[in-house]
Amino acid sequence: MTTSNQSKISLDILRHSCSHLMATAVLSLFPEAKFGIGPSIENGFYYDLELDKSLNPNDLSRIEKRMKKIIAQNIKFERKKITIDEAIKLFRKIKQPYKIELLKDIKKHGTTKIKKYPSTQVPKYPSTQISIYQLGDFVDLCRGPHIESTKNLSKISFKLTKIAGAYWRGDEKNKMLTRIYGLCFEEKNKLEEYLKNLAEAKKRDHRKLGKELDLFCFSNLVGPGLPLFTPKGVIIIDELKKEIEKICSAYGFEKVMTPHLAKIELYELSGHAKKFGKELFHVSSEQGHDFVMRPVLCPHQTQIYASRKRSYRDLPIRYMEAEKQYRAEKSGEVGGLNRVYAITIEDGHSFCQISQVKKEIKNIVKIIKDFYTSIGLWNNHWVSLSVRDYNHQEKYIGDPEDWNKCEKMLEEVSKEMKLNAKKIEGEAAVYGPKLDFMFKDSMGKEIQIPTVQLDFATPKRFNLVYTNKEGKEDFVVMVHRAILGSYERFLALLIEHYAGAFPVWLSPVQVYITPVGKAHHLTTKKIVQEFKECGIRTEIDLLNETISYKIRKAEKQKIPYILVIGDKEMKGKYLNIRTRGNNNIKKLTKKQFIKKVLEEIKNKKL
Amino acid sequence: MTTSNQSKISLDILRHSCSHLMATAVLSLFPEAKFGIGPSIENGFYYDLELDKSLNPNDLSRIEKRMKKIIAQNIKFERKKITIDEAIKLFRKIKQPYKIELLKDIKKHGTTKIKKYPSTQVPKYPSTQISIYQLGDFVDLCRGPHIESTKNLSKISFKLTKIAGAYWRGDEKNKMLTRIYGLCFEEKNKLEEYLKNLAEAKKRDHRKLGKELDLFCFSNLVGPGLPLFTPKGVIIIDELKKEIEKICSAYGFEKVMTPHLAKIELYELSGHAKKFGKELFHVSSEQGHDFVMRPVLCPHQTQIYASRKRSYRDLPIRYMEAEKQYRAEKSGEVGGLNRVYAITIEDGHSFCQISQVKKEIKNIVKIIKDFYTSIGLWNNHWVSLSVRDYNHQEKYIGDPEDWNKCEKMLEEVSKEMKLNAKKIEGEAAVYGPKLDFMFKDSMGKEIQIPTVQLDFATPKRFNLVYTNKEGKEDFVVMVHRAILGSYERFLALLIEHYAGAFPVWLSPVQVYITPVGKAHHLTTKKIVQEFKECGIRTEIDLLNETISYKIRKAEKQKIPYILVIGDKEMKGKYLNIRTRGNNNIKKLTKKQFIKKVLEEIKNKKL
Repeated sequence: MTTSNQSKISLDILRHSCSHLMATAVLSLFPEAKFGIGPSIENGFYYDLELDKSLNPNDLSRIEKRMKKIIAQNIKFERKKITIDEAIKLFRKIKQPYKIELLKDIKKHGTTKIKKYPSTQVPKYPSTQISIYQLGDFVDLCRGPHIESTKNLSKISFKLTKIAGAYWRGDEKNKMLTRIYGLCFEEKNKLEEYLKNLAEAKKRDHRKLGKELDLFCFSNLVGPGLPLFTPKGVIIIDELKKEIEKICSAYGFEKVMTPHLAKIELYELSGHAKKFGKELFHVSSEQGHDFVMRPVLCPHQTQIYASRKRSYRDLPIRYMEAEKQYRAEKSGEVGGLNRVYAITIEDGHSFCQISQVKKEIKNIVKIIKDFYTSIGLWNNHWVSLSVRDYNHQEKYIGDPEDWNKCEKMLEEVSKEMKLNAKKIEGEAAVYGPKLDFMFKDSMGKEIQIPTVQLDFATPKRFNLVYTNKEGKEDFVVMVHRAILGSYERFLALLIEHYAGAFPVWLSPVQVYITPVGKAHHLTTKKIVQEFKECGIRTEIDLLNETISYKIRKAEKQKIPYILVIGDKEMKGKYLNIRTRGNNNIKKLTKKQFIKKVLEEIKNKKL
Repeated sequence: MTTSNQSKISLDILRHSCSHLMATAVLSLFPEAKFGIGPSIENGFYYDLELDKSLNPNDLSRIEKRMKKIIAQNIKFERKKITIDEAIKLFRKIKQPYKIELLKDIKKHGTTKIKKYPSTQVPKYPSTQISIYQLGDFVDLCRGPHIESTKNLSKISFKLTKIAGAYWRGDEKNKMLTRIYGLCFEEKNKLEEYLKNLAEAKKRDHRKLGKELDLFCFSNLVGPGLPLFTPKGVIIIDELKKEIEKICSAYGFEKVMTPHLAKIELYELSGHAKKFGKELFHVSSEQGHDFVMRPVLCPHQTQIYASRKRSYRDLPIRYMEAEKQYRAEKSGEVGGLNRVYAITIEDGHSFCQISQVKKEIKNIVKIIKDFYTSIGLWNNHWVSLSVRDYNHQEKYIGDPEDWNKCEKMLEEVSKEMKLNAKKIEGEAAVYGPKLDFMFKDSMGKEIQIPTVQLDFATPKRFNLVYTNKEGKEDFVVMVHRAILGSYERFLALLIEHYAGAFPVWLSPVQVYITPVGKAHHLTTKKIVQEFKECGIRTEIDLLNETISYKIRKAEKQKIPYILVIGDKEMKGKYLNIRTRGNNNIKKLTKKQFIKKVLEEIKNKKL
């Protein structure tokens, strides 16, 4: 956040004024227009309006032109204070029913924010004064503030981008209005940068790249929200799984495998049945079965803990699992890999004594650090330490003494591990305090995935106990941890972060190799065999196509290394290596090249 | 099968006669007994009867004693032929209503096999003759044959084993009768062997060992039929997965990952909706979703194939996956790992041209051979080659010419790979011919898991095509392959086959190590660290218990190697190694021991 609050407000005002400017332009082009609301938003503004006709992109150009003309005319934003009843009279005169509706709400409730109220209510605020703004012929009910005159807009850069439908006041029972979106920045280069980023994001879109790179697909017969991962997609997921397992098992996590179904009783006890309600998938059969698809993995893992007597000497017990959980998202909301019905979650839990919590947190933070370093995201992160709202301690589950201890431990960990965590009061879960890690991807988008959460509630619900040194039963503390979240979302994130050009260790095909002609087939095959035996994922292309076409094909697939085997390579000592994103051809012996690739894999070179 | 048909029939007769003998004994002890049916079965016989009282184990001893007494009396099995009406009169006199019911069926239909028939039917066979057998006071409606007299039973060995309930004629609307089971063998040592095997099987029962060795568990909250695999169970499953993946990927199989749900349309098209009917789990939500849990994996994999245009140059395409399928088994029928709702199936398919089928089959047979050799089962197998019923070729899907080609290929593979497959006509699937592999486990139980099945139907249903050399579209042939079937059943099988004493490579803990006292902790920990770094799964036990108790504990866990570290080991050159199933303690240097264990893991030593 480099923008100061002051300049942020100014930009907001500019955008809001730009919205009025657009309304003025619209009114002059379409005098019958009825106006809804037109606020500033992130990167720009919009205005909702009712028109006799539907707009097309040409209309947007016309409106833009008219806006520029109005700017050049240097018209003033005139503000007036009048009573509500006067305002109603005014807007009745200029035929703006939506404004009148808003005014009537203010008259009754002092605000426009109330959507539903008893119709018998008596107006309370008839003589309250409100402000109106006028710009040219356009008059708006508006709190402001605004700029002085359109002259102040002469340096801004704006662009109308999209026409959409929007229900009046967001209620689908109301009329659908036309919403015009606009971008607005203080300077031209900022708008250009934004548009460039937008185009880049579109190019990086995981749905587009996922198809081009053949990483996953969908089937109409299987249904939306249910991605099918192709061999290349599975290679990436498997590499990530191996990495997570390697790191986590070094810190004592053991893999378990639990079913995707359970009786509803499990979630009634855990509280998830209530929490997820409509989002639960129910499973039934003609034989009378009645299950739910699990919305989360935690309760299953508690049942493994609970399957045996545990002693303090067995603790901590740490389970991990990468299996599916299910959410009945609204069918209109699923899409790509970010919103799916079946989510392959990488989940893990540590069951420990309260005295062991600090070490557990440290371990998990180390895991997060190790993993995000290997992905190349660690260098740009911040940490939130979410603690109780101390004014309302009654809403949290668990012994306040345990909370004190654990919050203190989290702070100590933050200090000792130099996390510089930002303490945020009131952000703890009801069952315990937590650490959340925030990263930024290569497009500057914030990613919030890894978390360490303490949980005093679940052990009590499921009676997760151990026999302590004194031979008495005590509840464990459950530590939830997420490292990469779900494989679906994480794959989407990585595709967009790397723009499909995965580092060598994650690339489905690491080396692409093609012979120049028939005479080079045998040698090429031998080289491929050797690469494969070394564990390098190599694709050989024996098709009868031109070399330049083949190279373009491989480049489009974003394969890290491209090798062409011809007379030179057969006779000489060196391979000629095309490296992704580098125009120079590099000469290395086969041995050197193999060593280089294997090292890059091992070190997870970015 | 070493028993000849002749001696098999004789044993059946002995067992059947033994059932009459038991009935005679029962009648003399419980004169009110009404008799149902009493056939010979595998290993013995049973009789269903109605009694005024419920039997207890003491009653079985009394019946056994009475049977022996009757044998000693040398009573004759007397056979008579009488008409059905005479027989009904006779059984009415001796008050045997069940026999009368059977006779009435014969009178109407000429058989007792018909359960339901229109009640208006006119008797057809009143004067047909049937045979009755009398032994002492017990008279039975029976086709025979029987032995001459109880003298012939003097050498047999029998034992009444179990009292159970059984509905008359297997229909739960009928009365529940008492069933007495008996074992019967020609010789005493055969019965003893059988009882010994039974006890051994009980000891090996995967449900019992699975609990003792902490490989999996069940939870009342999750529900029956839904096993949860604990860390040790997952180690075994993961080792098997790695082995399967390693072998299969060497033969070109690529991993895919598909969701566990699909729209019902997928299975309507594949034919599975009809096939599995009531066994389908349906998935719904309050948001209106409607899916089924997949009963098989194949259709999902077809959808990955179908997601792109394929050329003859891309074929064969081979997918593999180890994910869950679901069957709504009757809730009374689930139990242990053999009958579960969620089945982790190891499934794979090859999509190829018909000219490639032979090589595909060969590859898959090689995979089966490699895998079952590593498990130690290959040495005891036979193969079935299931082809069409040539008299009813009309019932098979696909071009007869393709069938001819593929059946011929299967025969050639059998010959060339010396499988000595037994050709069985009429055993092919409707969609194609197949090879099935049968093994025997260490208890002699037949295992039928691996299979290679050709499929001409599915590609047509899902329009799975490729562009052939001539630029035209052609259907692929789909080759289904199963290697180990499901991980649940395979784990159950392995637990019972190895009696829990897994070979080193599959053992969840490969080395158990304990220091003698506090003075040896540090050295022990260092050794453990070294073992772990070499990839040896090592468990250290620092509890304050006696060494002999600890060793017994580790032996009960069937850990391959047990090491105790004391003064001798700290000062000397050698480790003292207890090997599972071997009383001698072996002396090896640490280096030698590590080498030995790693080699055993690598070679999958049994």
